[in-house]
Amino acid sequence: MSSSAAPVQPPPPRPVRFGILGCADIARKISRAMRMLPPGAATVAAVGSRSEDKARRFVAEIGFPAARVHGSYESLLGDPDVEAVYLPLPTSLHVPWATAVAARGKHLLLEKPTALCAAELDAILGACDASGIQFMDTTMWIHNPRTAKMREIVSDKDAFGDIRVINSMCGFRASEEFLKNDIRVKPDLDALGVLGDVGWYCIRSILWAVDYEMPETVIAHRHPVKNQAGVLLACGATLYWADGKTANFNCSFLTNLAFDVTLYGTNGTLHVTDLVIPYEENSAEFSVASKSNFIKPTIGWDPLPRKHVVTTDLPQEALMVQEFTRLVQNIRDAGGRPEGKWPAITQKTQLVLDAVKASIDKGSEPIEVAS
Amino acid sequence: MSSSAAPVQPPPPRPVRFGILGCADIARKISRAMRMLPPGAATVAAVGSRSEDKARRFVAEIGFPAARVHGSYESLLGDPDVEAVYLPLPTSLHVPWATAVAARGKHLLLEKPTALCAAELDAILGACDASGIQFMDTTMWIHNPRTAKMREIVSDKDAFGDIRVINSMCGFRASEEFLKNDIRVKPDLDALGVLGDVGWYCIRSILWAVDYEMPETVIAHRHPVKNQAGVLLACGATLYWADGKTANFNCSFLTNLAFDVTLYGTNGTLHVTDLVIPYEENSAEFSVASKSNFIKPTIGWDPLPRKHVVTTDLPQEALMVQEFTRLVQNIRDAGGRPEGKWPAITQKTQLVLDAVKASIDKGSEPIEVAS
Repeated sequence: MSSSAAPVQPPPPRPVRFGILGCADIARKISRAMRMLPPGAATVAAVGSRSEDKARRFVAEIGFPAARVHGSYESLLGDPDVEAVYLPLPTSLHVPWATAVAARGKHLLLEKPTALCAAELDAILGACDASGIQFMDTTMWIHNPRTAKMREIVSDKDAFGDIRVINSMCGFRASEEFLKNDIRVKPDLDALGVLGDVGWYCIRSILWAVDYEMPETVIAHRHPVKNQAGVLLACGATLYWADGKTANFNCSFLTNLAFDVTLYGTNGTLHVTDLVIPYEENSAEFSVASKSNFIKPTIGWDPLPRKHVVTTDLPQEALMVQEFTRLVQNIRDAGGRPEGKWPAITQKTQLVLDAVKASIDKGSEPIEVAS
Repeated sequence: MSSSAAPVQPPPPRPVRFGILGCADIARKISRAMRMLPPGAATVAAVGSRSEDKARRFVAEIGFPAARVHGSYESLLGDPDVEAVYLPLPTSLHVPWATAVAARGKHLLLEKPTALCAAELDAILGACDASGIQFMDTTMWIHNPRTAKMREIVSDKDAFGDIRVINSMCGFRASEEFLKNDIRVKPDLDALGVLGDVGWYCIRSILWAVDYEMPETVIAHRHPVKNQAGVLLACGATLYWADGKTANFNCSFLTNLAFDVTLYGTNGTLHVTDLVIPYEENSAEFSVASKSNFIKPTIGWDPLPRKHVVTTDLPQEALMVQEFTRLVQNIRDAGGRPEGKWPAITQKTQLVLDAVKASIDKGSEPIEVAS
């Protein structure tokens, strides 16, 4: 009944060999995430920057000492050892470089906002599709196990019912330095400003909440705040669905850090206040009230809302990279096809973002959402 | 150095002698609050109903066995022993009965919504003013010590900065029975429906947050939900101030119990999720984040939001009655004048409510708020 033979261990998968295109701050977070993954998931094979020096310094920092240094984006794309590219360049550079990545047959992990408009994104997604490569944007919180747990609860028609109202507010108080020099306030680099940055998360969180059902109409709030160059620093909008659901969001570079999403269902209510960046890496909370009644004569609640805590060994950005590498390995090693749900939700996010931007540009006129 | 004389105790004040006009459910909560107060504050001297039987049963329930029973509202108003009237009649009856209360020189504690429109409220407040009586509406949460603690924090320009965005959602899931028979869904009784009921709290909470600075413009959300008689069951609006502040609110009879208000300031954020009816009577919480920063590389928050707990010996409705009786005793026993801040905030609430109603009636047109 016992055997003296050692158990057969399958060989670990070959890690996906990433090239990082641009040494943005956020690339440090992503390479840290790659380092946290188990062996066989991801490695940084190369870093490309317009400045070879900058790329060299970056490589020295990130804990992948074998990564090759490229003094231009073109050179990184020509590196045959690079299988997938993480692309954190300013949004205005996404179309040329993302389509170039796809044209080389490399898989694409693209920073958000993915494009300046839906037509640009279509060009990127079309190139990815034509090359049969995997596309994913870097909306990290989608990969937090908390998000899956929230989905489970919100999907429970008895405990939560139908969502009728959604509120989302994402923002942070940008420093004077940020408001002067960050790429997110520069019209030639990230023309969508706060709407593309944290507004992206508001829109995605709302779409996530309704399982990606598209709203019919979007109306921007009046009086968006812009900088002197015309880039959005604070704005908001109301979204309307055909069945009467309503969502409201605000995004801002001018208020204290907030990543709030609240869902109001016919039977339940869900509050999360750190959706995009959880307070802590390994544990994330949210709170749910279900079938709340008054204690008569309206002197209290019964039952009380309940706090849910979801722990995770890996932070959400590591889980994102892990999911991306799993899909790439499935294509590379098992003849699989790219997973279409990732570009699909990116596209929906960008379409709603387009509608909000159009409404802002037209003085808060109602805009029908394309679909 | 010691004295054998007993310390001189001032005599306790004579309690304010209330008449309750109408035996609504909510009147049970108010008479319970009167019972909880220390001696010398409030007593129920009389109860008036169109049905003497109903008034008798009500008196038997509320623990003021000496209360006289009146078989009509007129009879109660003619009772010379009644100094102040608590008036929980349906809103459509407020003008005739509230002005009659004032004409008799009795002080007025009036249920919200105080009137069907600001012009009606003006008639009531004008009558109170002419008679020199104290007016107060029954927005109970204003009197919770938690509200004072929140004000202290929000007023701190360093810790909280300037409020830029406010979200409020108040609602509960009404039963089938409520949606069929409650006065709050009847066009001839409470024609404002959900807007007058829980929408009142949304508007008041928003005005409270900005220290009663009036918004310039109000735009109702599209697609308000109405019943077959045209009474609002769910609606919302966005409010705009001259300085760019924005507030959004939703109110509903169709979603799970929620009394949320969230304030977003330049330096701080405040969340409260049970503003109108706290989860528990003797303790109420809220949460404040101040000068929140990212832990780099954006993997957490520092400092974390902080929970505040405010305890109270008396529930908020008892504190409301206590404050009202204090003001009445000051007029009655010390020659004081009515406190003007209570009618002033009632009027502001009703003016904003009027603007929201007008915007709803005009298909979400922007409405300038009267002031």
